[in-house]
Amino acid sequence: MTAGPTCRVKLLLAYDGTGYHGFAIQPGVATVGGLLAGALERYLRHTVELTCAGRTDSGVHAWGQVVSFDSRAGVDVTGLQRSVNRALRPAVVVRSAELADPCFDARRSAMGRVYRYTIRNDPVADPFSSRTAWHVAAPLDLNAMRLACDALHGEHDFSAFCRRPPVPGASLVRNVRDARWTDLGEGMLRFEIEASAFCHQMVRSVVGMLVDVGLGKRKAGQMTTVVASRSRQQAGPLAPAHGLCLWEVRY
Amino acid sequence: MTAGPTCRVKLLLAYDGTGYHGFAIQPGVATVGGLLAGALERYLRHTVELTCAGRTDSGVHAWGQVVSFDSRAGVDVTGLQRSVNRALRPAVVVRSAELADPCFDARRSAMGRVYRYTIRNDPVADPFSSRTAWHVAAPLDLNAMRLACDALHGEHDFSAFCRRPPVPGASLVRNVRDARWTDLGEGMLRFEIEASAFCHQMVRSVVGMLVDVGLGKRKAGQMTTVVASRSRQQAGPLAPAHGLCLWEVRY
Repeated sequence: MTAGPTCRVKLLLAYDGTGYHGFAIQPGVATVGGLLAGALERYLRHTVELTCAGRTDSGVHAWGQVVSFDSRAGVDVTGLQRSVNRALRPAVVVRSAELADPCFDARRSAMGRVYRYTIRNDPVADPFSSRTAWHVAAPLDLNAMRLACDALHGEHDFSAFCRRPPVPGASLVRNVRDARWTDLGEGMLRFEIEASAFCHQMVRSVVGMLVDVGLGKRKAGQMTTVVASRSRQQAGPLAPAHGLCLWEVRY
Repeated sequence: MTAGPTCRVKLLLAYDGTGYHGFAIQPGVATVGGLLAGALERYLRHTVELTCAGRTDSGVHAWGQVVSFDSRAGVDVTGLQRSVNRALRPAVVVRSAELADPCFDARRSAMGRVYRYTIRNDPVADPFSSRTAWHVAAPLDLNAMRLACDALHGEHDFSAFCRRPPVPGASLVRNVRDARWTDLGEGMLRFEIEASAFCHQMVRSVVGMLVDVGLGKRKAGQMTTVVASRSRQQAGPLAPAHGLCLWEVRY
């Protein structure tokens, strides 16, 4: 960072996660955060330390990722947005750039996150949704999948759907405010889930189980049992990354 | 082809044209037709000669391309569809494969073609539509663009919008049955045009002119004059290929 007075910048970010190793900066691999930091640093001529609302995994997309960082006071956020968009298009787009309250922190200030998971449920694939939707050829029972969603609502320990080994003392209790399926027509199904926060790979793990329900491999009622079990062995397979999108962060 | 009784096969084809040099087979370059013929020949173990309804250009997409070819009688079209889809996914998908009347010809039997052109009209680009929509950042006057469409309806000599040097004696008269803009919301605009047939690059040339009208560079009323002029110099710039999609072929 530079010496002198600083300001906090808030970016609203969309990206096609195909081909990126997620958001978090890792040396030697192409990550969204790494590319973004590079483009910001070239424009600002100082190092930046990014905080993001949701550390999306490899191949996961975002429409409403939020990022915050510090810069020098008086930075031209419009010029910054234009410059970064020129450098990173078409896969990464800064939808808006603004000065934020100095207390604003993209991660800690977030009150809720909304993820969307898209499925193409049709015997035949669609070349235009292949980057952003999971193609499930066998017919899904949407009613059963909707029924199974009920067990997700409210405050639960989501250990069964957390794919990372538990950190001692860290709570995996999360508050799911909404979880619903929408039939978009023409074979497209969308799952939308909102929670205070999510455990690691929780949405993909939940969708994997819901699709098993939709395929008739498991009963809708088992969702309650699996949540209560807190056991990772009870959950279904992981849905692929490319169907997932960090849709919105609420502050 | 094989000796013995033959049958005619009709394929309904969708493809993401990004990275392909159009449909028509050309030696040494990746074309949709070339890849499709290769996959068909590997499955059928005889050479095929493809006829397509619309020879899409480099980078142009299709949702409803139709292809016909001859094979041996009794060919398993379901197995053929499955095999080709396995070989060419995700960019190229055979939506359906069926036996057709021996007189059926994907090009000559077609009564009409429908093309769609998609524009993202928003100051900010969208990574998810960047492969299939033209990003126009400056605001477009949709009413003016709709007004300009009127001049396209009906039977006209579309020489002004034909990008290929005229073949002596070949008519460039085409019958446009419908041409309309739809506001899809969230900054997305769609132009749909149906005609008996199209001249070379006619849709992209028409859209280029309509966008000039939308940007206020030309008046809506000029469309009539340009059509009547039959002069290629009068038309606007060519809209980029990646916004165009062969949507449907009517028989």
